[in-house]
Parts: sequence; structure tokens; C-alpha cells
Amino acid sequence: MERIYLDNAATTSLDKEVLEAMLPYLTDKFGNPSSIYSFGRETKLAVEQARKTVAKLLNVNPGEIFFTSGGTESTNTAITTAVRDLGVRRIITAPVEHHATLHATGFMQEVESITLSYVKLKADGHVDLEDLESQLKNSTEKTLVSLMHGNNEIGNILPIERTGAICAAYDALFHCDTVQTIGHYPIDLRKAKVHFAGAAAHKFHGPKGVGILYVNEDIRIRPFLHGGAQERNMRAGTENVYGIVGMAKALERSMARYEQDRKYISELKAYLIARLSATLPDLRFNGDWKGDSLYTVLSVSFPRNSKTEMLLFNLDIQGICVSGGSACSSGADTVSHVITALDPSGDHIPVRFSFSRENTREELDHVVEVLQSLV
Amino acid sequence: MERIYLDNAATTSLDKEVLEAMLPYLTDKFGNPSSIYSFGRETKLAVEQARKTVAKLLNVNPGEIFFTSGGTESTNTAITTAVRDLGVRRIITAPVEHHATLHATGFMQEVESITLSYVKLKADGHVDLEDLESQLKNSTEKTLVSLMHGNNEIGNILPIERTGAICAAYDALFHCDTVQTIGHYPIDLRKAKVHFAGAAAHKFHGPKGVGILYVNEDIRIRPFLHGGAQERNMRAGTENVYGIVGMAKALERSMARYEQDRKYISELKAYLIARLSATLPDLRFNGDWKGDSLYTVLSVSFPRNSKTEMLLFNLDIQGICVSGGSACSSGADTVSHVITALDPSGDHIPVRFSFSRENTREELDHVVEVLQSLV
Repeated sequence: MERIYLDNAATTSLDKEVLEAMLPYLTDKFGNPSSIYSFGRETKLAVEQARKTVAKLLNVNPGEIFFTSGGTESTNTAITTAVRDLGVRRIITAPVEHHATLHATGFMQEVESITLSYVKLKADGHVDLEDLESQLKNSTEKTLVSLMHGNNEIGNILPIERTGAICAAYDALFHCDTVQTIGHYPIDLRKAKVHFAGAAAHKFHGPKGVGILYVNEDIRIRPFLHGGAQERNMRAGTENVYGIVGMAKALERSMARYEQDRKYISELKAYLIARLSATLPDLRFNGDWKGDSLYTVLSVSFPRNSKTEMLLFNLDIQGICVSGGSACSSGADTVSHVITALDPSGDHIPVRFSFSRENTREELDHVVEVLQSLV
Repeated sequence: MERIYLDNAATTSLDKEVLEAMLPYLTDKFGNPSSIYSFGRETKLAVEQARKTVAKLLNVNPGEIFFTSGGTESTNTAITTAVRDLGVRRIITAPVEHHATLHATGFMQEVESITLSYVKLKADGHVDLEDLESQLKNSTEKTLVSLMHGNNEIGNILPIERTGAICAAYDALFHCDTVQTIGHYPIDLRKAKVHFAGAAAHKFHGPKGVGILYVNEDIRIRPFLHGGAQERNMRAGTENVYGIVGMAKALERSMARYEQDRKYISELKAYLIARLSATLPDLRFNGDWKGDSLYTVLSVSFPRNSKTEMLLFNLDIQGICVSGGSACSSGADTVSHVITALDPSGDHIPVRFSFSRENTREELDHVVEVLQSLV
């Protein structure tokens, strides 16, 4: 059997139609969009058309969309500028956020002496919104709430509109890391009352190295990257034209296929849950897997023993690509900080399966067989 | 006649062989390099091979090379971390630097209260190195000198080794914006005694959206972008694998072709100088055009009058792509800050011609004819 790729929360394949849309800008249409001649204007037009496409799909104004080098830059920009430019003196986040958020907020605590606190989590990994509200009540310091929409490791989904309403009630700014949900769900950022949101194209079959930063038009920040006048003086650096064109195309394709892809992938996830439950009674499912959970992510944990400790390694030998936590931290951590936050005992081995429209039931059957043989 | 592209200092076409090298990573080889399975390791290997290639061509260690989203991020990282992590309290730069340097240093002056000063320029636009030395003598504050290697508008080349030696003598850090020279000259960063240098792949027939940051191994900075453990914990964010692979390939190709390309392009530049001198006696050449000057850039100025004020516009109508200043600032400024620094009178209209190996004498003949008809 060929390679089975079940790590789509780490990165996805590039959609062939997206690559087709990019190729003209990787060949003939190479002009610098900031140039004043018509050859530059044709790439400028492509960038602005991409901005309109993205804005429309997220129900915001094109002026609220900025193109970045990816989700990490978007998160860093939001958190840094909220402190530097918007008077934020306190950040409330969660221990299960992506490292981009945890490390950027930690850095703001260190260098800008902001107050940093974490919301309580419920047993199922969801953010305790009552705790968030009581923390917000508790101080008059200008506050940024930074909570992710879909958790990249355990799949839990934050009720974004309810969270936005709570933040609004206490005049807090709301940064929502939407890296796992933009391109996978229809998201109305206007309705969600977020001030900042971010995305990475490669999470939804777009290219690596390009992302979105949404900044609500009611707030005015200054650039995180200083230099040229690109992105209306907000993000300097020659525009990654083919990346931007590809990202807009990928988002457009993903939203056009949303109903069918969601149905198909949700059924795959349900199928794997059923097969695993029937064959491997010792494993447990992490997070709110039965409830508000990404249809693309399933996190399971195996009791730690000599066989399961080598599980990821042995799955790899069998051509199965899954991860222990997020890819971003796998180089550094042995145990995921998200799993540890929910279960500090460390007596289970987490395995994250994350799906795309390219996966099949046959692949999952094979994975279950291999798991049975290994565990 | 078809479009004549003479704005190669703004951006260059993507080399076909570079695109070929990128395509496997835009199709099958899409794994996340931070993953632990073999499919991720194959892209990790590609990134590390690219790092070795780049490091070897610049005569540094692979551990001193970091991949960024472009020249602007590299410059911002160098300047910001020099202040934040290395105790820099003063920056000396020049009024003819790229806006990335000018705005990033200006921002450090504003938010970190560093002392910011500018070196004097000679009449030909070169940095007055005696003034640099006297400024360095003048203070014991920890200093960063930020001077560009090749000026993107007038083409002047800084004596990088002599500048590095002066900085070393006064224990100053040296950031050299090498965006216009890496990929166009054999550069030995070790010998140049620079602490920071940067490049953007799209300036040497590589892809947009990816760049190099060189950080000398003797200094230890912290990340500018916080998050995952990528780039040995120094630059977070999923690696732009195909961009990185393409950049290394483009640098390799450029250096392999260096002798022939330099000869060919230098002759083009000399030819245009001769033709312009012979046919348009009123124009003047900017910078040290006869001396230490990029072979890729020729800046000329026409006396301002009703015809020359519309010159760029009319050249565009004739299919000729040239720029007034740098592309990065063309959206914002009407007059280049570099030209203004050298000639505040504003009574001349600057036109920058910048060449690549794809230009021909026939194109230049046509440009001269069109200029004659317009001016």
C-alpha cells in the first residue's frame, strides 16, 4: 500500500487547480505589484482581486484583509500590535493555544510587562467561558483575549460568536486564531466580533508561505514589518503574488466544495471512530470528540507501554503519516503541551489523525489493521 | 515590439530551471518539514540541503543561515533583534538606504529610544567612511551600523570589507543589506565581517516571498517571529519549502553563470550609457556610475520639463518598464528619497534602468529611440 497521509492539520497537498491558477504568476506575470507601469499593475490587480475574494468569503471589507507570510506572522502581528498600538496591558489566553500564540504572548509579558493569564479549561478541553467572563470582570486593564477557533491538536471548536460577545461586553479586544477553521468552515468574521483573525493557505490546499491577517476596521494598528508601502503601508515586503493568488483560489475552491467535503470528511472521521472503538478498546478519544469538534481532526490516546511508545515510529515504517501533537512543535517537544494541559499524568501516547477530502475509507481500514498489529 | 522589461532591481523573472526544481514541492512532496515521519523528513532534507547550498555560496556555516519571507523581514529581524537582544543603543545608517532599513531604524528610535544618526554622503552618493569612523569614535554606546552593499536606486557599491573592518575596530555590529548583491556577486560574508546580511530570492531569478537572513555565529539573537521550533527555534512558521528550494537553486544558478552574466550585463549597461550620452546630451547619470556601481543598475536624470514629467507614463505606453525610484516606495512617494538625498532641488526626473541576462542590445536601441521621441 502507498503512503497514507493523515496529517492534514499539519499541512495539506496543494490543489491542482490552485497550482494552475498560480502558474501564470510563476512564469510570465512576474511584475512587481508596486511598480507603476502596466506590467506591474497586472500583478497588483491580481493581488487586489485576491483580497476581494478573501474578504467576500469571510464577510469583511477588502480593507480589513492583509496578506502575510503565514499564520505565525499573522498571530505575531495581532498580539504585538495590540500591545504596542492599542494600549493592551493584559492578555488572557489558554494553555492549549498554538505555540505562536503562547510564545508571542509570553514575549509580550517579558518585554512589555503585560499581565498574562490563562483561562480555565473544562474536562473536555473546552475553554471555560464563565472563567473568561469572571477574569474580564476582574480588572479594568485594557485586555486582549487570544483564543483559537479550532484546536489543532484535539479539534475542539470555540463558540466564536459567544466569545466575541463576552469580549465586547467587557470592551476587550478579541484575537481568534482561525488557522484550522478558515478554509474548512464558512466563517463570518463580522458576525463573530473578532478584532484579529489569521489563516495559513497551506492548511486548506493552498501554498505554503502565505497567510491572511484580518484586522477589524475599527482599530488602527501600525506595521509589524517596516519598510515599503505595500499592503496600504501595513505590511512591507514585495508581495508574494503567486502565493496570494493561490491562497484566494484555494479558499474559493474550499468554500465552493464545503458542503460535500464536510459531509465526506465527517463520515471518514465517524468511520474511524467506530472502527477504532470496535477493535482497540484500550484507546480513548481526546477533547470533545462527540461534540463541538473539527471534522478534520481526531485525537486518540493509547495507554503508554513498550509497544505504544514506538507507535508513531512504527506507523511511519508502515507508510502512515500521523503526528503526536502539532508539527510546529514536534522538533522540540516530546510530549504535546496541549495533551499535557489536559492530562498531566503522561501515561498515554497521543496520536492525531487529521483528514482531508483526499483520504478514503480503504486507507482508514488499513490504518486500523496496522494499529491492531502494532498495539 | 513586445514589452521591454528594464526593472530587474524591482523583481526578476523566475528562472525556468528554478521553477522545475520547485515543482516537485508544489505537487507530490508537500509534507511538513517539522513532521517526524519520513514523508516530512524528505522536505526537511530539501530545506537543509538548500541551507547548505546557500551557506557554501556565501562562505558561512549552515547554522548562520535562516530562511525568512524576504528581504524586508530579514532587515527588520536584524535591526530589531540587535536592539532587543544585543544591547544596541545607537544605530548609524545612511539616508539612501532602503525603506525597510530607514523605517525599521526609525521605529527603534521611537519605541526603544535608541540614538539614530546618518552618515554623510559624498557628492557621488558614496557613504563617507571617514564620517562613519568619526561618528563611531564619538560615543561608547553599543552601536549597530546598517549600510547597504549595493544601492537599489543609484547602484553605488559600498566597500563592504573596509566598512566591516571599521565597525570591528570600534566594536560596532554591522548589518549589511545585501539584497541587491547576493545572487549578483560572489560574496564572502565571513571575510566581510558582517554580523547580519539579507537577501530576497526574487532579485536573482528566484521566487517571491522567500529570503535569507545571515546571522554571524558569534552573536545570539532571539526570534523575531515567535511560535514553532522551525529554523532551530529562530524563525517560527511552517517552512516555505518550494520557495526555499527555489531560492537555493536560483543562487546556485546565478553563481554558476556569474562570470558570463556579469560580462554580458556590464556590456549592456556600458552600451546604454554610450547610446544615451550620444543622443540625449541633457541627461545626467546618477551615483558613481563610472566607478563602484552595480552592473545591473543605471540611474539617469532628465531635466524636469513638461515632457519629462510624463516620461515614465509615456515609456509605459510604449511597453517599456522602468522605474522612478524603488518599487517598494512607488506607491507612496512621488520623488525617490534616495535621489532627493543627493539632489534636493527636485529639478530633475530620475529614471532607473535595471538589467538582467534576459535583456538585449536591440531592446536598448529601441528604448533610446523611444526616449529621443519623447524628450
